[in-house]
Parts: sequence; C-alpha cells; structure tokens
Amino acid sequence: MRNLITDVPGVKVGNAHEPRAATGVTVAVFDKSCVASVATLGGAPGDRAATLLEPEMTRGVIDAVVLSGGSLYGLDAAGGVSAVLCKQGKGATFGGIVLPVAVQAILFDLTNGGDKDWIKQPITHRPPYWDLGRDAALAAGADFALGTVGAGYGGTTANLKGGLGSASQRTASGFIVGALAAVNAVGMATVGDSKHFWAAPYEQGREFGGHGLPQKFEAKALAIRFKGQPAEATATTIALVATDATLTKPECKRLAIMANDGLARALRPVHAPTDGDTVFAVSTSQAAPGGDPPLLAELGAAAADCLARAVARGVYEATALPYAAALPDYRRRFGS
Amino acid sequence: MRNLITDVPGVKVGNAHEPRAATGVTVAVFDKSCVASVATLGGAPGDRAATLLEPEMTRGVIDAVVLSGGSLYGLDAAGGVSAVLCKQGKGATFGGIVLPVAVQAILFDLTNGGDKDWIKQPITHRPPYWDLGRDAALAAGADFALGTVGAGYGGTTANLKGGLGSASQRTASGFIVGALAAVNAVGMATVGDSKHFWAAPYEQGREFGGHGLPQKFEAKALAIRFKGQPAEATATTIALVATDATLTKPECKRLAIMANDGLARALRPVHAPTDGDTVFAVSTSQAAPGGDPPLLAELGAAAADCLARAVARGVYEATALPYAAALPDYRRRFGS
Repeated sequence: MRNLITDVPGVKVGNAHEPRAATGVTVAVFDKSCVASVATLGGAPGDRAATLLEPEMTRGVIDAVVLSGGSLYGLDAAGGVSAVLCKQGKGATFGGIVLPVAVQAILFDLTNGGDKDWIKQPITHRPPYWDLGRDAALAAGADFALGTVGAGYGGTTANLKGGLGSASQRTASGFIVGALAAVNAVGMATVGDSKHFWAAPYEQGREFGGHGLPQKFEAKALAIRFKGQPAEATATTIALVATDATLTKPECKRLAIMANDGLARALRPVHAPTDGDTVFAVSTSQAAPGGDPPLLAELGAAAADCLARAVARGVYEATALPYAAALPDYRRRFGS
Repeated sequence: MRNLITDVPGVKVGNAHEPRAATGVTVAVFDKSCVASVATLGGAPGDRAATLLEPEMTRGVIDAVVLSGGSLYGLDAAGGVSAVLCKQGKGATFGGIVLPVAVQAILFDLTNGGDKDWIKQPITHRPPYWDLGRDAALAAGADFALGTVGAGYGGTTANLKGGLGSASQRTASGFIVGALAAVNAVGMATVGDSKHFWAAPYEQGREFGGHGLPQKFEAKALAIRFKGQPAEATATTIALVATDATLTKPECKRLAIMANDGLARALRPVHAPTDGDTVFAVSTSQAAPGGDPPLLAELGAAAADCLARAVARGVYEATALPYAAALPDYRRRFGS
C-alpha cells in the first residue's frame, strides 16, 4: 500500500502545474470506465459535466476526474484530459465516435500571487488549463507527489499553505478505499495556529506528523477564521474518493455524501457560502458488490476517514509559494 | 420586436460555426450580470458551471449562457466566451481579478456527417469549441440568424434537420419574455412526417409556416420514433429563456422548470434518457419584480410558449447539411 488513492486497483493519478502562474491540474484516470456520482456541499461550486452524475441521469460511467485551480477559467482542463482519453480509445463509442467522460471541479487560486497572464491579456493569452489537463493525463501513474503539486499547487487555507493530499485504507470487509483532495479551504485544517490537525483522530502512523489533538481547546484556537476578506474569500476543497467495491450510481452518491463528512472533520469551517466543496465518488467495480447498507456504511465511513486524512496530508506536505505575502507552510513552521 | 430573445432588454446573441465539422456555438451575453437558474430534465446532460445555478448555491448572477455542439468536447466553448467577457471587464472582481461567469450546455452532433478531426487525431488537433465560443461572443448583437447556424448548425431531429430557433412576446402584465433553442431532439417537432408542427397552437403569425394542426391525428403519425439506433441515439435540445422582470434565483428556477413544458409541447418524445435537455432561465432585472405567484405563473406560461415556438422556428428555418445521408430540411420538403 502506498497510502495513496492509487492503491484502489484501476486508479492512476497525474499532476501538472505552471509554477509561474502558481496553479495546476490533477487528474485521476481509470483503467476501465467507472460508475460515479458527486455530492456538492460547498456554496460556490464550479464544475464540468457534473450533472450527468446525478442518479436520475442516464450516463453511468466516467473515465476521469479532473481537479484544477483557475476557478471557472480552469474548466478548460477536462478538454485536454478528454483529448488524451480519446487518443487512448477510452470511453463509450457512438457510431464510431469515441466519447470519453471527464468530469471536473475547480478551486479558486486566482489571487495567490501567481502571474495569471490570461486575465491581464485575455483572448491573446489563453488560460493554461487545457494544456495542463493534457499533461496531467499523460503523466498519470500509480505514484504521484503530494503537497504543492497539481490542483493543490496554488491552494491555501486560512492560516497555512494548502496542497494536494491522498490516503487509503483497507476496510474490515476487505475493500480498498482511497481519497484524493486539493485543499484550498476558506477555513483551517489545524486547531488554531497550533501544530494539531483537526483530522488527528484518524491519522495512521505519523502520516501528517503524529501530533494528535491538543489536551485543551482554547477559546482563541476555536475562533472562526476565514481566508481573506469575507466578501472576497473564494476558496474550495475538491476531492475524489474511490473504492474497488462494486457500487451502483445511487450508492456512489451515498458514498460521496458520507465522504463529505471527512471534510467536516478535517476543516473548520467548511462547506461555506464561498467554498465550492465538491466530492466525487467512483467505484472501479473490481471487487465484490458493496452496496448493501452495512457494507456501504462501512465504505462511507472509511471514505470519510480517508478524505479527512488526505486533507491533513495535503497541508502537511505543502511547500509555501515564493511570494512575500504567501502563507507559511506547515513543515517550515512546525517541523516534519 | 424582432421576435428574438434579444427583444428582452440587455440580451445579445452571437453565432459561430465551423461548416467543415458541421458544428457550432451560440452565446447569449448580458449587458449586466443576470440572475439565473437552470432545470435539467433530459437524461444525458452535459454542462459547465451549471451547479452554481441551483438555488442553495451562493453565486447569483451570470454573464453569458453558452449553447454548443460537440457533446462533452464542446464544453471548451465557455472558455473562449470567458476570455471575451474578461476582456470586456464583465463579471465580478475578486482582489482585482475579473471573473465572469459563463454557463454552458451541449448537444450531441458528433455523428452528423461533419469532419470531427479532433477525434480522428486527438491531442494534435484541438476541438474547435474554445475558438468558436470566442468568435460567437465577439459576434454578439441584437440581430442574429436562425436555422443552420451556431449551436444549431449540426442539430437534427428524428425526421428533419434541426437548428437554432428563437421567439419573444410581451405578457399581459407588460414584461418581455424570449426564448432561444438549439434543437437536436431525439424525437420530432412535427406530427409524423406531416407539415404540421406540434407547436402550432402557440404560433404567432406565420412564424413557422402557419399550417396549424392536422384535423385528424393518424395512428401512423403518432408512432413514437427516435433518431438513430436506440442504443446510439444521443440527442439533446438546449435552451435559454429570458425576461426583463426582476426575479430571484429560486424564481428563475421555477421559470426554467415551466419553460421545459414548452419543450414537452413542441417535441415528442423529449426529456428522454438519451436527451440532455437543459433549460437556463435568466432575469435581466430591468423591469419590475415578477416573482409574485400570479406574475411568475404568467411569465412561466409565456416562457413555455416562447420556447415551444423557438423549437418550431429552429426546425422551420434550418437548411439540410450537404451530406448524402443528411436529414432533409423542412422548407425544401414542405415549402416556406
């Protein structure tokens, strides 16, 4: 086990980023088309091809999940991913036409200090996301980096640099569950400015430092803080949970909803009006059916734990952006 | 009155298409950001930035609605539109960053005979939609063509060429309502293969030929027919309704739901598992509040009528594609 979402058989992940613009794209691609759904509990989401994941919609399977920076400009990324998938012959075929399905969610990293030249010189300078999506899809593999990479490259939280995180576990029933998160929360992953992560109860080994929870929760540490000015704070944590259990689309919807509880446990506040928090859930269906309520409950609980851990790892593994006003990173502040 | 959606003050429309690929993009851009929502009743939708239009989401206003061909590949179009809107300084500003909101829905025109070179040679040949979105936004004005243009360029129905349609009307309360539709239904706009449109009861003047309904409805004419092989029939009618009445986002959601009834009256079948029928509704808010139930009911009824008429006009104004297997157009078959 790599403690990555790629421990789920059939899932590969690739990153691509543009350091000058301080933004990037992360793609999860699937060996075979996967059953999937989504639960969007943030108040300011941006997504592409997400409606077809609702249980009442026909299309049941997808070929990639794209997470990216760039806010709405970033939604070009799934186009570059789709070109790679098309070249690889992935997706359904209609009358000889290959039509892969790449779904996407974005986060807002436009004011993080990077040079967004496509906003300064629109039309002549294209946003980099189509190319980044293509490159991330071409880079997909079982191993991938965490922290200031891919969709997490430009991410921040209210007090620390955010980043890309991942985690996995095997359930008591033998299923594998993994999570992938690009952390850019309007809230915080730590208890105040302490070294303690809210996700500490679920930590495996010392995957994000092993500091546990504080003995006392001071009022100051519990003060609710938002990134940036409230009126401008546009944030978002976007994520994917995956399992090898065979699930239907409505069961994936349930998995996505329960997985959001991992965001609730790892970030405070989260699901805010200016967060676009979006959690996709996919079943690679390489293992036995997991949709009976007791099994699905176990998968959902595991997905929430994995996602909470992935969020903390995303912050723990991040490196601060090289700008004077950039938020500090966890490890320079607290050691590793 | 032009009998176009641009009769609604504050709405401009532009088309762009690539004849060789037999596909295109239509964009409605707004002089000022508009309150908007969406109702997706088709079973196989493809959209971009649509989730933020749900009433529980924060973002209340949008700057453009993009309709396009290309199925999921077409979802790059909103990127090109956004570049133009950014250049024009439209949209909200966050920390000095201009962020316009262009929402989009697509239709499936990939098997209509056009040369989709980006599918034959993926990665090296990019889909044309980003450029088409940019060009359609740059072309936006009060006058625009109907038929085989823009997002309707590649559209078809079960028995006739589809196309882009539009219509408008003034309500008894003095509000203006308009509709815009790119017709690519899996079903039919006519009663069997007759010259009679299902939308005939709502026709104004002879805007789509003035043939009324047939005196008798023959069983043969009522036989349910789908475009293409059922397993491959991927279709979709996508639309926008607009009004100058001042509405909230939940009221726009209601308007979008009622407007879908216009699709139900003009197309049979519609909202099918392989249709991605999506109806956006926007309020330019240049007139008085229209959200009180009696006023909103009147606006919804008018929106449904306008959308039914827009569908019929889209088919009526269309010109057949120049391929041997292409479906015939209405006017060559029945005269104008």
